[in-house]
Amino acid sequence: MADRKTAILDAAIAVIARRGIRGLRVEEVATAAGVAVSLLYYYFGTRDGLVRATLDHANERAAATPARGRDESSGYAGVSAMLLAELDDAPQVRETSVVWGEVLASAVFDAELSVQLRAANETWVALVERCIAEGRRDASVRADCDARASAERLTALVDGLSARWLAGLLDRERARELLADTISRELRPSID
Amino acid sequence: MADRKTAILDAAIAVIARRGIRGLRVEEVATAAGVAVSLLYYYFGTRDGLVRATLDHANERAAATPARGRDESSGYAGVSAMLLAELDDAPQVRETSVVWGEVLASAVFDAELSVQLRAANETWVALVERCIAEGRRDASVRADCDARASAERLTALVDGLSARWLAGLLDRERARELLADTISRELRPSID
Repeated sequence: MADRKTAILDAAIAVIARRGIRGLRVEEVATAAGVAVSLLYYYFGTRDGLVRATLDHANERAAATPARGRDESSGYAGVSAMLLAELDDAPQVRETSVVWGEVLASAVFDAELSVQLRAANETWVALVERCIAEGRRDASVRADCDARASAERLTALVDGLSARWLAGLLDRERARELLADTISRELRPSID
Repeated sequence: MADRKTAILDAAIAVIARRGIRGLRVEEVATAAGVAVSLLYYYFGTRDGLVRATLDHANERAAATPARGRDESSGYAGVSAMLLAELDDAPQVRETSVVWGEVLASAVFDAELSVQLRAANETWVALVERCIAEGRRDASVRADCDARASAERLTALVDGLSARWLAGLLDRERARELLADTISRELRPSID
């Protein structure tokens, strides 16, 4: 059962990445996952229920990505790898970014989705914050850095750059360059 | 005629701000503007044509906002006022931000919209860049600042913060505080 549910949610991510939330048809997700439409309604209740479960699944999938700051040589290297991974060209990263952008845009008009998204966002900001704090301890991040404020600024910048990349306003290499420079200015101990 | 067209486009901005692009019904815009639906099709051809004209109109309206860097005492004050104005609580600013966010999200799935958006974005980035360059000349901005890169970073951050504010993830005051700090770090001449 868990496998079929995961297959449905992976299919829903792919459909949203291709057509957006507004273009998501429950029938198309069912076909892509190779299951009956009735099974989707059985698992998720409504189309909105499917969208919410897809957001959760996209977040879990993103959190499971190895680049999210593990096995790095320092706190700085960890947070840097974690943030730059959001602008990676792996198809799965692009899919997750599109889903995140779609859900962020939809939450403006959907209070329930906003509550769910706030929790997902807090998890993400807190993870970046912990990595920055680790960098302060190992001295790879400047001592006077406000880890919370830096985490909020850097994750917001990633969202802005990611949205511009996906919308075709900025190429991915330039977005990565702008992000890497900002991480360095924001966190690197000053040389003077 | 220009007045009726403007009234229609103002109504379309208000409808998108309330329901999003996916919730825009041509009939509702016509009712709100007090005109016949046939007149909308006469002016804009299709629903997509109306959406595109609305984006242009929102950009013109935003560019006409007095806070966009005029009458400021220095280049730094100008760019700072211009960027912070995007997180103002005036209803018109919120409306424009929602429209921008919606169009940015939609451009991911619509190549024509992406082209149109690229032009609008370039105008906005170039305006910020010019203000930063002015700040370099009047020494209110650090001499080693790369005006283009800073403009790209700061406008992307504004988009990210704005999206989080509109989606209910971040309160507006906090978003302004994070932005003001970033502008200062990015542009202020260093004291050492």
